[in-house]
Amino acid sequence: MRITLIGSGNVATHLGAALKNAGHQIVQVYSRGAQNAALLAYHIKAEPTADLWQITPDTDLFIISVNDDAIDSMAAALAVHQKPIVHTSGAAALQVLLKYTDQAGVFYPLQTFSKNKEIYFRKVPLCIEGAYEDLTIELIQLAQTISNKVSIVNSDQRKILHLSGVFACNFPNYLYHAAQQLLAQHNLDFNLLRPLIAETAQKVEHRMPADVQTGPATRGDEKTMAAHLNLLQNEPDLKEIYVLLSQAIIKMGQR
Amino acid sequence: MRITLIGSGNVATHLGAALKNAGHQIVQVYSRGAQNAALLAYHIKAEPTADLWQITPDTDLFIISVNDDAIDSMAAALAVHQKPIVHTSGAAALQVLLKYTDQAGVFYPLQTFSKNKEIYFRKVPLCIEGAYEDLTIELIQLAQTISNKVSIVNSDQRKILHLSGVFACNFPNYLYHAAQQLLAQHNLDFNLLRPLIAETAQKVEHRMPADVQTGPATRGDEKTMAAHLNLLQNEPDLKEIYVLLSQAIIKMGQR
Repeated sequence: MRITLIGSGNVATHLGAALKNAGHQIVQVYSRGAQNAALLAYHIKAEPTADLWQITPDTDLFIISVNDDAIDSMAAALAVHQKPIVHTSGAAALQVLLKYTDQAGVFYPLQTFSKNKEIYFRKVPLCIEGAYEDLTIELIQLAQTISNKVSIVNSDQRKILHLSGVFACNFPNYLYHAAQQLLAQHNLDFNLLRPLIAETAQKVEHRMPADVQTGPATRGDEKTMAAHLNLLQNEPDLKEIYVLLSQAIIKMGQR
Repeated sequence: MRITLIGSGNVATHLGAALKNAGHQIVQVYSRGAQNAALLAYHIKAEPTADLWQITPDTDLFIISVNDDAIDSMAAALAVHQKPIVHTSGAAALQVLLKYTDQAGVFYPLQTFSKNKEIYFRKVPLCIEGAYEDLTIELIQLAQTISNKVSIVNSDQRKILHLSGVFACNFPNYLYHAAQQLLAQHNLDFNLLRPLIAETAQKVEHRMPADVQTGPATRGDEKTMAAHLNLLQNEPDLKEIYVLLSQAIIKMGQR
């Protein structure tokens, strides 16, 4: 396919590379920042542009991969070209695009992307939604050229997936940070904890989290929990988090 | 070495297997439950016993790997044999053993162990403490026969490590569970989320968590956070967790 990328952030970068590697032609990369557009465009052999008026209608698909707040104005600008437009957001509804075009869809990769960290895109779940069946099929076929994990997911489900991702990714990463800060305060090396983090995630690759829950709250070990709260007496924020999550784990065992 | 294992839970099982595989002789396995003792003893070619009076002094080291509350009474019973005694607990102080014997130490594996899930023990950090230098050295040498990650860690530091482990392992696993429950309520497959969990943990293998934090709270994306809280309106516990952790992430960005 001939594809135009709107945006040059983490998602646009990884998705653009995956599409390029799968043999698609990236026609143009648009980004408000000319330098970002140029950098990504160089990597995926596309034409960069920072000017909306330079965007050519000579493409098969526009992929909008920008901040949620900017999707609306991009869709408004691109609709004149009368080509299919998809966005890559977990939180934005299909409706945002349908205001401007019937040829609307979603191409949501459920993964956390970082600059300078490669990802094996064939394992990234792609959640597809199309405004009509032919477009859905076309988007699924495109998705399958870059991923083995393609699903049809409607806007309501996608919002739940996105919310679940916050619980399964953003919040755990914050807790890694909290742990790392505790260690640093006592001159302990974060490396001591890294194998535990890796194993905790690996455990749920083939099991349900409820089946592998461990720790003092699971055992109802009040003595250890009291000792932990005592260690956190100068960390009111962490103490509150400790209490709330321990209570939730205790409830989980009671169900 | 000739080693006697006290306990037959997850830690005793994985540690016993690692020691056996490294060429040590496991003399006896003691467990209050005769069946548990027999099962583990069979696997590591030791003599099982459920009777404290059957424990032989003909050993080089007692490893107590039982619930924290039971360490004290085990140490009291074993001290008569006048052999070194270590426990494997992250939360219990060395002091618990020193009440009964000078030959006291700690052999704490900082990892989460599950029944029926193999672990590559050479990557498990072992935190060692000895009551005197010769014992510390002896324990370090023993630890190095089964792990490449051996550190000397005193009781205060070990308590911090244990607490950090709750933040880095037990709490994230609970959040995986919360995410899985949200998906299940909307007939969505947990498999959709598993690559995200794996990638989130992998990211911090070589980076600091603060450097790879993503999500709406990091971006200060109030609109998405409000939409998420709206989706959680029938889940007061998850809503409270969402607010508290999002606030913590926002604070983290401000530092």
